[in-house]
Amino acid sequence: MDLKLVKQLAIPSSTKIVMLISDGLGGLPREVDGQSELEVARIPNLHALAARSLCGLIEMVGPGITPGSGPGHLALFGYDPYTYQIGRGVLEGCGIDLEMGPSDVASRGNFCTLDEEERIVDRRAGRISTETCEHLCCKLDQIRIEGVELIVRPVKEHRLVVVFRGKGLSDALTDSDPLAPGQAPLAVMAIRPEAERTAVLVNRFLDQARGALKEEKPANMILLRGFAAPPKLPLFPDLFLLRAAAITCYPMYRGLAKLVGMDALPFCVDLDDELRVLAANYDRYDFFYVHFKATDRAGEDGDFEGKVAALEELDRRIPAFLELHPDVFIVTGDHSTPAVLKGHSWHPVPFLLWSRSCRPNGVSGFTEKDCASGPLARMQAVDLMPLAMANALRFKKFGA
Amino acid sequence: MDLKLVKQLAIPSSTKIVMLISDGLGGLPREVDGQSELEVARIPNLHALAARSLCGLIEMVGPGITPGSGPGHLALFGYDPYTYQIGRGVLEGCGIDLEMGPSDVASRGNFCTLDEEERIVDRRAGRISTETCEHLCCKLDQIRIEGVELIVRPVKEHRLVVVFRGKGLSDALTDSDPLAPGQAPLAVMAIRPEAERTAVLVNRFLDQARGALKEEKPANMILLRGFAAPPKLPLFPDLFLLRAAAITCYPMYRGLAKLVGMDALPFCVDLDDELRVLAANYDRYDFFYVHFKATDRAGEDGDFEGKVAALEELDRRIPAFLELHPDVFIVTGDHSTPAVLKGHSWHPVPFLLWSRSCRPNGVSGFTEKDCASGPLARMQAVDLMPLAMANALRFKKFGA
Repeated sequence: MDLKLVKQLAIPSSTKIVMLISDGLGGLPREVDGQSELEVARIPNLHALAARSLCGLIEMVGPGITPGSGPGHLALFGYDPYTYQIGRGVLEGCGIDLEMGPSDVASRGNFCTLDEEERIVDRRAGRISTETCEHLCCKLDQIRIEGVELIVRPVKEHRLVVVFRGKGLSDALTDSDPLAPGQAPLAVMAIRPEAERTAVLVNRFLDQARGALKEEKPANMILLRGFAAPPKLPLFPDLFLLRAAAITCYPMYRGLAKLVGMDALPFCVDLDDELRVLAANYDRYDFFYVHFKATDRAGEDGDFEGKVAALEELDRRIPAFLELHPDVFIVTGDHSTPAVLKGHSWHPVPFLLWSRSCRPNGVSGFTEKDCASGPLARMQAVDLMPLAMANALRFKKFGA
Repeated sequence: MDLKLVKQLAIPSSTKIVMLISDGLGGLPREVDGQSELEVARIPNLHALAARSLCGLIEMVGPGITPGSGPGHLALFGYDPYTYQIGRGVLEGCGIDLEMGPSDVASRGNFCTLDEEERIVDRRAGRISTETCEHLCCKLDQIRIEGVELIVRPVKEHRLVVVFRGKGLSDALTDSDPLAPGQAPLAVMAIRPEAERTAVLVNRFLDQARGALKEEKPANMILLRGFAAPPKLPLFPDLFLLRAAAITCYPMYRGLAKLVGMDALPFCVDLDDELRVLAANYDRYDFFYVHFKATDRAGEDGDFEGKVAALEELDRRIPAFLELHPDVFIVTGDHSTPAVLKGHSWHPVPFLLWSRSCRPNGVSGFTEKDCASGPLARMQAVDLMPLAMANALRFKKFGA
């Protein structure tokens, strides 16, 4: 739905929406019995809830398109993931829970090893330990460049994120990483004229980084790539008139929620912890995004039984969510991660949306086949938030 | 899907896609028993395969729109047939397997009969024989006009195609055919300024044609209409990173495939021959478009039983296709040709898409009703190629 229309229709209310996102929820049949993870799992609570809910399958981007976590979440939050694309540097920043604002340009980076002639010998500096990375990032974080604020943060092993913060910066920059050994790191260049000043600043930073690291072994330089500014999107709380909170165990998902303007509640360790945080903050917010990771992790590992177990774990917590009496309760995923494919996939994702006035659509269980049997077997994921708003009685009439 | 996105997502792979297009596949119930051609036909292989496949109905252009072969095929190949329209001259050129390039303007034509006052007496010159047409085209093909290369080719009976080849030509031209007898042939005029030079060249050609034909009886002149340049479309092999081959028995379909940049394999005489060519070239390509004409021909003739027989013939060859072990196998049509309507129709067309990871959608047979019972009962035909690419594991993730 057009976000202008969302903004026009949204009205305040005291109703509460809980969106439970089970990462990588959708699956595929395994060979032995032709059943998917959701079909094999004992999930009586989800099946019973589905029978009382609006159910279907959602497509995050389009037919045949496998969404990353970024586009998947944006779509669930109501943003067209094709219109609002999140650049790699920003996504990496989300992954370490960096606070990013509209005047930032973020870049991914690697520590690397240069030889005496400044040619790259190892693009990953022998995959230095995360500890070494932290130590070196600390050093780089002390670099000062006039006209821009610098934030250098470690990710994992040889990976880092650099954020350039300041007015008038642009992300229309080429990479310094030539992506192949044997060459020298490249000077960063402006792709468009408005990025010329940013290119100068980034190259100054890279010069200083070279100086700061020259005695280090093996990580005596960094390579930057994927410069990106946060997407210019209208903020979720303003659009939907919802005080919105994100409850997560992992920085990536918390970072994505912060990008759209949700409040990030303290990190949790597991689903029970998330439920406690949800209950503790229930009065303070109108919308809760709760992220459950285990389904995706098992799927990525190709662990069919593990994904089944994760689904059963999720199912056992469903009554606890319902005991909070949300006005709208949604269970879905940000993409499919079938164990048989060991990764994200393009297959549409089951969803259920319960409210007192949801008009259940005759789907009898919470599996891919059940959800495909109803009339919403091919819904766009961006339509979920408008439906949630309607069911929360938070949308006024369109026209008179 | 936006073709820019296709190009962004496509990755190389060793997987193979076979798209079997049964021309005019969709049908309608006959009066005697209310059953369609697909329902009457004994097609056990297609029914069994459908049960293991993603099935549905596809719409080529839009609701209520009856597609010609051009738009139907473009949509199946992933091109929006409304954005990329193939002009009549170009389509006629495809129909005789003319090689056409970006600097061509093609026109359909008729031989006609003029009286002594240069008025049209018969727009079809008494439907001269194809042999006479060939002879006269040979004569016209020898005309030379400075600044443009001319190609004059016979079609059938009184019909011909003229291609004007050269830099800076435009197809923004009016017809010379007034479409009614009693008038003189019209001078071709430019609709837009950039076509003025082309109009001069075409009129020079028509003057010379009049001279060359003036002693002929009854075909003493030609009428041109439907000037068209080939659509400027990104080529299929570049877009999808697929080495693509067309296997056909008829020039029109081969011509359409060549327009999008597929390699045309030698003409075949029937489906068995097509299967042989497919097997012989299986290692050389990634994508095979195989065209089966008999279903459309019987439909056009209003021959319900003939169409049933054609479907049964197709069904018997399905195992031979599967024995090649394509990674993705698609069976569909470029439009419906119900025998009861004796022509193309607007009805959506059944499709099945099989792959190891297709997530079958519970459709139990390959009929219009079966395919309408699943969640993809109203898919856009342009979405078929993206789905094929995903199932061939030839699309990377969108976003991270």
